[in-house]
Order: sequence, then C-alpha cells, then structure tokens
Amino acid sequence: MARVQADVCVVGAGFAGLAAVRRLAGTGREVVVLEAGDRVGGRVWNRELPDGTVVSAGGTWLGKGQERMFRLCRELGLAVYPQDERGDHILRLDGVNHRYRGGVPKAGPGALAALGLAFARLNLMARQLPADAPWRARNARQWDSRTLGQWLADLLNVPSSTAYTLLHSTMNLLFCADPAEVSLLGALVLARGGGGFGYYTDTRKTESHLVDGGAPELARRMAEQLGDAVRLSSPVRQIVHDGGDVQILSDALAVRAQRVIVATPPVLAGRIRFDPPLPAVHSHLRQRVAPGAIIRVHATYPEPFWRRRHLSGQTLAPGSPVPGTIDQTPRSGLPGVLSSYAFAAGALRLGRLDPQQRKEIWLAALAERFGPQARRPTGYLETDWSAQPWSLGGMVGHFPPGVLTNYGSALREPLGRIHWAGTESATLMHGLMEGSVRSGERAVDEVLAVLSSSRRPTGARGWAR
Amino acid sequence: MARVQADVCVVGAGFAGLAAVRRLAGTGREVVVLEAGDRVGGRVWNRELPDGTVVSAGGTWLGKGQERMFRLCRELGLAVYPQDERGDHILRLDGVNHRYRGGVPKAGPGALAALGLAFARLNLMARQLPADAPWRARNARQWDSRTLGQWLADLLNVPSSTAYTLLHSTMNLLFCADPAEVSLLGALVLARGGGGFGYYTDTRKTESHLVDGGAPELARRMAEQLGDAVRLSSPVRQIVHDGGDVQILSDALAVRAQRVIVATPPVLAGRIRFDPPLPAVHSHLRQRVAPGAIIRVHATYPEPFWRRRHLSGQTLAPGSPVPGTIDQTPRSGLPGVLSSYAFAAGALRLGRLDPQQRKEIWLAALAERFGPQARRPTGYLETDWSAQPWSLGGMVGHFPPGVLTNYGSALREPLGRIHWAGTESATLMHGLMEGSVRSGERAVDEVLAVLSSSRRPTGARGWAR
Repeated sequence: MARVQADVCVVGAGFAGLAAVRRLAGTGREVVVLEAGDRVGGRVWNRELPDGTVVSAGGTWLGKGQERMFRLCRELGLAVYPQDERGDHILRLDGVNHRYRGGVPKAGPGALAALGLAFARLNLMARQLPADAPWRARNARQWDSRTLGQWLADLLNVPSSTAYTLLHSTMNLLFCADPAEVSLLGALVLARGGGGFGYYTDTRKTESHLVDGGAPELARRMAEQLGDAVRLSSPVRQIVHDGGDVQILSDALAVRAQRVIVATPPVLAGRIRFDPPLPAVHSHLRQRVAPGAIIRVHATYPEPFWRRRHLSGQTLAPGSPVPGTIDQTPRSGLPGVLSSYAFAAGALRLGRLDPQQRKEIWLAALAERFGPQARRPTGYLETDWSAQPWSLGGMVGHFPPGVLTNYGSALREPLGRIHWAGTESATLMHGLMEGSVRSGERAVDEVLAVLSSSRRPTGARGWAR
Repeated sequence: MARVQADVCVVGAGFAGLAAVRRLAGTGREVVVLEAGDRVGGRVWNRELPDGTVVSAGGTWLGKGQERMFRLCRELGLAVYPQDERGDHILRLDGVNHRYRGGVPKAGPGALAALGLAFARLNLMARQLPADAPWRARNARQWDSRTLGQWLADLLNVPSSTAYTLLHSTMNLLFCADPAEVSLLGALVLARGGGGFGYYTDTRKTESHLVDGGAPELARRMAEQLGDAVRLSSPVRQIVHDGGDVQILSDALAVRAQRVIVATPPVLAGRIRFDPPLPAVHSHLRQRVAPGAIIRVHATYPEPFWRRRHLSGQTLAPGSPVPGTIDQTPRSGLPGVLSSYAFAAGALRLGRLDPQQRKEIWLAALAERFGPQARRPTGYLETDWSAQPWSLGGMVGHFPPGVLTNYGSALREPLGRIHWAGTESATLMHGLMEGSVRSGERAVDEVLAVLSSSRRPTGARGWAR
C-alpha cells in the first residue's frame, strides 16, 4: 500500500473536510484528505438525470447568516439566486388542498395560535442552552430524558390536533426521524444553532437561496483547487494513535501525520477502528448519533407547469407518503424540477417496495397536489440516503435521549492527535452546510494552535515503516 | 484469499452462533462460522489472572428456566453450583452500609413499598407486550416515546427518593446505560423476556448458578466439538446477496453459502457492508440498538475473607463509582474472587482515568464496604467491554426510544438469504446467554425450513470465482 507523510490528515471530503483543507492551504502545512467515496461533497451531491439535467440531491439551500457559504460562492465564482417564492404554497390536510402564502399555513386560528405558541416555547427553551455545552443547561437532564415526540404529544404543549399534525410532520422533515427518537434537548440544539426553529422551517425567514450549478459544485471546485491532496475511494478503516504521530490507514493509502481531523458523519467515525480504542465516552457518542431516513425524488417536466397555476411548488402534506415538495427549477427556468421527499417511517415503508410500485405511489401523491400533469415527468430520479454507504442515512444525525448529557462532551473534544469536525459538531448552523464549514475551520484552528509551536519543513515525503 | 462453499455460514461465534451450528450439526449440512475475534464466546469470556485464576468476565450466571444452558452443561460435562447466598448483602446509602438478607434491601418501609409498587407496575406493563411483537402492544407508541429514566423520575410512579435511587441504580446495572437512554417500551421488553424485572435483579428469585470452569468454558467446548467449522480472526466485512446464493467476505476467508445467519450484536451487524444495501428499516435498526458501558473488575484474595464476617459479597452502592459487587469465588472456595462493576456514566468517567488512578478509586470503593483488606488483592483484572472491538460495549444492546415501534419488525425478519440471531433478537430470556442460544436455534429452524426443500450433497468443496 502506498504510504505518505503529512502534517495533517483529514478524513472525509464533505464540506467540513474540504473547508478544513482550504483553511490549511497557504499555511505551508502538508495535507492529505482521505475520502471513502468516489466523489467529494458527502451529503451534498449533484446527480444527473438521463436528459442531462443536473440536480442537487442533498444539501441544497443557503440562507441568511451563512457567511461562509456565500463567501465560498463568491470566491469560487458561483452565483446564487433566491428560492422562487411566488405563488401559493399548498397545505394538504385530510385530503383537501389549502392554498396559502408566506410562512403561515392555512389552518384554523386556534391551530395557528397553538402552532405559534409551541414554536415560541421551544425557541425559548433553546435560547437557554449554552451554545458550546447544551448539556450544561439548567434543565438539561430533564429535557434530555424526554423525547421531542412526547413533548409534542402533550396537550399542555400542543392543545390543537391540527397544530400537532403540522408540528409532527415538520419535525419528521427536520430530523428525517420519528420525533419519538429525538431527545427534546437534542432537538433544541438544532433550533439553537439557527436562532430558532423558524430558521429551518420557513424558507422566507431564512431567505433561502440556491447556488447556480448546485451547492455540490462548490464542493467540486474546492476539491479541484486542492488538487491531489484529495484522495477518493480511500475509506479509512483504522487510526493508530499511540505514538509520536498518528497513522491513518485507508484501503488505498496509509498516511502518517501530526494530526488527524475526522470530518465524517458521527455514524461513520464510529466505525473506524481506533488503536488504542477511544475512551468509551467518545466511541459511544459516535455509535449513538443516528442519521434519519430520507428518500428524495427529483421529477423533471418540460417546464415548471405549477407556476402557471400560481403555485410555488412548496407543499406540506402530513400523512401523505410524500409529505413535502419544493420547486428546484434551475435559474434558467427550464426544465421544471420538483423536489419531493419521504421521511422517517414513510421513507422506510417506501424503501421496501419495488421501484415501479414506489414510483407509482410517489407520482400519485404529487398528482394529488399538482394535478395529473405531475404524473408524467420527463425525468424521475430517486436518492435514498440510507442506501449510500458513506452517509448511511440523512440528512443530519440527531441526538437520542440521554446522549448529550452522557456523551456530549466528546462531540468536539480533541483526543491527543485526533480532532473532530462535521456539521453535528457545529454550535452555530448545526446540521447545515454552513455548520459543516464552521466545524472544519474550528478543527483547523485547534490543530494550528498546537502545530505552530512545532513547525517543521514541509514537502512531499515518502514514509517507510 | 481462501474461498469455501457451505450450506450455511454463521457470522459470530458467541452463544447464538455456536448454538446455531450445534443445531445444524447432524443435519448433514455443511457449515462455516466466521468469528471476528481470536476466541469464541463473544460477550462471554474467560480471562486468566497472573496467578493463574480463571475468571468469567462476561455472561456468567445461569438461572431458573434456562433449560438450554443447563442442558448444554450436562451435554458438555460441566457441573453447575448455586451462587453462594449465605451471609448478609450490603446496601450502601449516603455513606452508610446497611446489612440485609434475601432479595429485599434494608430501606425504610415507605421506600420498600414504593420500590415494590414500581416494579409491580413495570411488570404489569411488560405482561401486556406480545412476546413476538412488543411494538404492537396497545400502548406501544406511547411507551416507546418516553424513556425509562423519565418514568422513574415521575413522582407518580416512584414517590420515594430512596426507592428512586435504588431503581435508578438497578436499571443502570441492567442496561449498563443511563435509564434516560432507554425506551420505556425497550425496558419492558427485557422484563418481559424473564417474566418480570425480578428475574434480572434478584439472584434468589433467579436461582442463580455458576458453571464450574465458567460459562465461557461451555462455549469453548462447543467450538471444540465443531472443529474446523469455526474460523477465528475472520471479521466479516461484506455480505453480497444479490444472486442465487450469498457471499460472505471476511478478512481471512470468503464463503459462498445458501444462507447466512448473522449472530453478532446488532451494533456489529450494522457495520457489515451489505450489497445490495439492506432496506433502511434493517440497517437503521442495527445502527440504533446501542450497547452500554461497563467495566468489570475481578479482585482476588487468598480467601473470600468477607465470608468470615458473614457477608455474601453482594452489594449495591448507588452513587459509588463501583455501585455493584458480587462473590465469584470458584467452587473450590479458593481463592476469594470478588467481581465488581462500574456502569454507564460511572464507567465512562473511570474509563478516562489512568489505570493506576482508576485502580485506587476502585479499591477504595470496595474497602468502604469490605474493610481495608479489600484494598490488598493478590490479583486485579479489569475488563472494559467498550474497549473490546468485537463487542463495542456491554452487556446487552438496549432499545432507545422510537426504535422498536419504527424498526422493531426488522429484529428477526429474514431478508432473502439473510437470517438474524443474537440475544437482542430473543423473545424469551432476552439479553441473557439462554436468549442467545434460543435465538440461534430459532434462526436455524428458519434456515432448515427453506433448505429442506432443496437438499444438496454436502462435503468440503472448493469454490473458484
């Protein structure tokens, strides 16, 4: 096996890993990135439909306050454009489509009040969390011993059944998991990272933008600039960290480095064999932060036909097998691209059907909201994130109960020569691409702080065992 | 890499895998067991102290109703002997040792009543679970959306703080995890498997027995009889199941088989790469069933000195770094062996200390209950189950909230040519060695039912790709 030596080895070429290397570039440090898959981007992925249309099938939207992502767009020459919010959204409840505009769905006033109050309560709780250590909040143990699902089901918190339906569906969407799986404290950590749940649920509040060419094109260009520092198809199996340096052993390449930044989703970091083994608080944390289930379908049409009927393409249909849709038509306006989603239990059920049956159910669900035209897409592309071996689920790993209070301290804590990045370790913009980038930069700052005192000459060096 | 062909390949040589092969022996089927580690037994493990004393460091005790385990002992020529229950147990509360006898600790009558009532309530709930499908219980969704920790903390369930302390500590011990991590429904599944929590908590009720030579000796003898069907140091990395058979690829050997029985803990099954990928309900289940943290220490003394002071060696000390101890002196009566435990958060904390510091704290905790003599063991052996790469924790994987109701159906469901065993998949004696054996036998019954219709000649065959 080929062996190289570097100052820093980064594991995983998602946004966290790429941002880490980008920050290291120019410091004179030699860096190698080992990516398990055959592409960069991780949970950010451009895919091509048979007709040549390229769609972003993972992280896609940028929003207010995501300075690093917008800066990357500028630096790498990619334009952004606002999500097309014109036309009515649809809320489909009990078999009826309700049109509405803006962030507030068409539900009875009682339901809306209950919905607003529930979100306000959750956001108020979220604000009580210390960003760096939510497990130290005054109520941390209590909130971490209950689930988001139970909180939502409590009539004292959500007295309206319509509000409950909307909240439950929204949380399914955010975590791609049954809210019964998610710690209340863990849910608040997500909210805290965006300054409230509204940041994640209301595209207007977020001022959602798309990247021309797709956010994954950003990752591709970042990697391009990094040249052969990025090694694809190099899944890391083992990290040996008992000596004066650290050895990172992948299927394709062995790296000896001063420091390693593990920038994979926690579930994948948890599968690397560390030698000596990690302290249990570290290994058990990474066993437990679980990604959800999400199937995303891109359906293309000759044009975004829904716009002619004054629809935005954005819909929410609790109880439907395809509870969410959003317009993802490229900037040019052609072809029409509708992005649609199944989450959690719905995704699990659909994932077991044969592809033809799944497609029929899927398109029937779209037709309920967009009419028979939706049944006849020119292109149809499924992305099941649970089937991606280097993601194992999507879109973000959530914290089950008891995890933050028992293991949270290991989220970012460097361990000897090992540092941790990834959006699940982000304090701000947790779970977003912006959070990934921030986490990668934070890890590099940790590394540089210790390396600067021991500067060594750089340059490609062979390494003989 | 060597390649062999077999009728059935079993992954994992713990009791589940060994029991599967044992049941297959004599059916004329050719079987190969691939074990990742360099020994059989899995979470059942005999270790040797420097003075030659052999101690069972994982699953150790048998009890009432564990027919299969007792039968194995008879068949393999190993005697059993009852746990020595003579003398007083100690309950250490708030710095004071309280001696008591039998299953009822020395606490105030109010605390005892509350304790009894809480267990009775939990057992009543457990009895409502259908053994084969606890996720179909009438209250399953409700119970699965809350944690055991929250249930215990509810004053309506446990009105006495002493009872709470005892219950919390006992549940820590049972799951080796913070009860806040465990689904209430998941906890009831364990209780259900033994006919009530008392089966797991009261050594008298269970009629606890030890195996002469240790339960791991049973596993060793089972493997010995199976000869070269058992391949050690063969971690399975990938299972390819898209054709007319299934290929099981380990580091040492590739097996082509009609059927595979995956008999590893769920956390390890979840790390095998399946090609094509498993349906998400299967992969996500195995990502989520999390083992706990447990450090077990065997301290040996020239004799079981506590017996002279009319102590049984069995103690419970909530809040102590070492909350549990039990006498594990061999049948001969010499040397004195005290088995002691740290669980969950306590184990995580101790696991981070340097060994010398940990040992001092550990022995100091023993001395609080057994006097200064406990500080001077002749032998001292630590087993940290979280550091074992082919267990990744101990002693049983628990179900976090939302897992059984969303993914439980995948626990035992065969998937094409793939079958599942392991104590976490057991309906009766869930979490115990007996459950492992039963699960392995159940998986074999599934396999034989389908194979019997397609009987083929057996005998060692090479396999050229």
